[in-house]
Amino acid sequence: MMKALRFEQGQLRLADLPLPSREGEALVRVTLAGICNTDVEIVRGYANFSGTLGHEFVGVVEDATDNSLIGQRVVGEINAGCGACDECLRNHARHCRRRNVLGIRGRDGAFAEYLRLPASNLLLVPDAINDHQAVFAEPLAAACAILEQVTLTSAHRVVVIGDGKLGQLIARVIATTGCDLTLIGKHESKLELARAAGVKAQALADVVPAADFDVVIEASGSASGLQLALDLIRPRGVVVLKSTFHGKVELDAARVIVNEIKLIGSRCGRFTDALALLADRRVNVEPLITDEFALADGVAAMNKAQERGVLKVLLRP
Amino acid sequence: MMKALRFEQGQLRLADLPLPSREGEALVRVTLAGICNTDVEIVRGYANFSGTLGHEFVGVVEDATDNSLIGQRVVGEINAGCGACDECLRNHARHCRRRNVLGIRGRDGAFAEYLRLPASNLLLVPDAINDHQAVFAEPLAAACAILEQVTLTSAHRVVVIGDGKLGQLIARVIATTGCDLTLIGKHESKLELARAAGVKAQALADVVPAADFDVVIEASGSASGLQLALDLIRPRGVVVLKSTFHGKVELDAARVIVNEIKLIGSRCGRFTDALALLADRRVNVEPLITDEFALADGVAAMNKAQERGVLKVLLRP
Repeated sequence: MMKALRFEQGQLRLADLPLPSREGEALVRVTLAGICNTDVEIVRGYANFSGTLGHEFVGVVEDATDNSLIGQRVVGEINAGCGACDECLRNHARHCRRRNVLGIRGRDGAFAEYLRLPASNLLLVPDAINDHQAVFAEPLAAACAILEQVTLTSAHRVVVIGDGKLGQLIARVIATTGCDLTLIGKHESKLELARAAGVKAQALADVVPAADFDVVIEASGSASGLQLALDLIRPRGVVVLKSTFHGKVELDAARVIVNEIKLIGSRCGRFTDALALLADRRVNVEPLITDEFALADGVAAMNKAQERGVLKVLLRP
Repeated sequence: MMKALRFEQGQLRLADLPLPSREGEALVRVTLAGICNTDVEIVRGYANFSGTLGHEFVGVVEDATDNSLIGQRVVGEINAGCGACDECLRNHARHCRRRNVLGIRGRDGAFAEYLRLPASNLLLVPDAINDHQAVFAEPLAAACAILEQVTLTSAHRVVVIGDGKLGQLIARVIATTGCDLTLIGKHESKLELARAAGVKAQALADVVPAADFDVVIEASGSASGLQLALDLIRPRGVVVLKSTFHGKVELDAARVIVNEIKLIGSRCGRFTDALALLADRRVNVEPLITDEFALADGVAAMNKAQERGVLKVLLRP
């Protein structure tokens, strides 16, 4: 039996469960897990998930068909595709229509002592990366996805809207390109944290929109963030929609068309890119950790994660 | 003096005016002009324009600083930039913040016996192109803009939503790429017209959205068209927003993000591309002409342009 933090029938609770069983998949003992806004949103009822929460983790393989994996420290891609459809064959399992997603869709997650994933989803963690860094691999990969979608050079003026966990990670990743980067947010303490990482940061109240940024990355998750993005972006510029919105948002479509703006939705990214940034010390994630709880205190940890000013909260099984 | 079809103080009327005077600009005698949906929208009060309507035209240069232009048959780029700002220096006068636009913003238009434009906006019309073809240069250029923004090959499955003037032109331009193209519309007669041009056309009522098109071009101008675009586009696909929307539209932002869809606003294009397609007989525009009126009957022509089933209505000064 094992402990797991579950969301079922509208209730968040700690449960004792049998170890997960999925034939042919690797069994991973979770050593550290991270709470994401998506977990909070699931508990608020926005998604339609029921089961063990959590998709950010680092752990050790305890069982696998491939013996060489056993005992290895790993992180894991969270999307598991069918392996046979057009998207899977293009290596886009994250867009497989029949996919399940760790702790998000049809698959128990990482807020547990053990999880299972296909061995092909697992990536070995280099020794240079400790657990407190490796646990950021998933959200850091999501930030890296932007660089798959937009080419950035030192000639580009870029703004990230949102100083939360996601905005902070994105700013750190984008800063590695050498572009002229500004982070915009509402919270002075978080803006200071970005400055400490070498990122220019500006309070939202001080922003004078001049429609002259080449790329705007929306990571606030609010409709007002999207509107601000359109106020900041230059004609023919690129707005990356990075954070989750719920329901419909109002879009000033005429502005998008007249100014020939490009809006790009962006979700998951490549773990290899994230691990490389961590191993090379190009992105420092540990200052983003606000607190760490035992898994047994998972309900309290989820509450903490929703408090104002809090960034990453970790869970230790 | 000359006749001009003007929209002033909420009224559309024919007026007698002095010839337009703009120092240093070429004077063009308009031989044929086309009514665009934008003209109809201006008269409905959506834009904030006051003056002579019209931006689709072909004419003959009657006066210019460069004598070699005089007597030449021309069409003209409708955006006149300041010539000095960052956008103008990038050759994007259409995004100059101080631009004026023929018959749309701060500049009298083409529904008149004469108009003026900077000589640098004018393009000579090859002899192979007659006036009834050349008058389509502006909307055809707008259709060509899509090919500047998206690369299409025979491997791509593409859909155009909207069987009106714009959708018809776009479909004809897109068909030249050899991609697998479908036009979706509501009007059987217009779908037939597309079929006659060699384009697969499907009635909206028969569409079963399967989210498997690589590129969707929205040319219906309705919010339901945008929603249909999101229903048709595959993950990581491209939705081109081509037609004007008024006010805010509701966007299913979560879908855009989860499926990592790209939305691209698209407005004006290069006249050179349009003239090349016409000169090479690669696009046949004349079947899209529904009717032709004398400029003196301009008010009746504008009414005709708004009737159901009508495509292009021309005005002859």
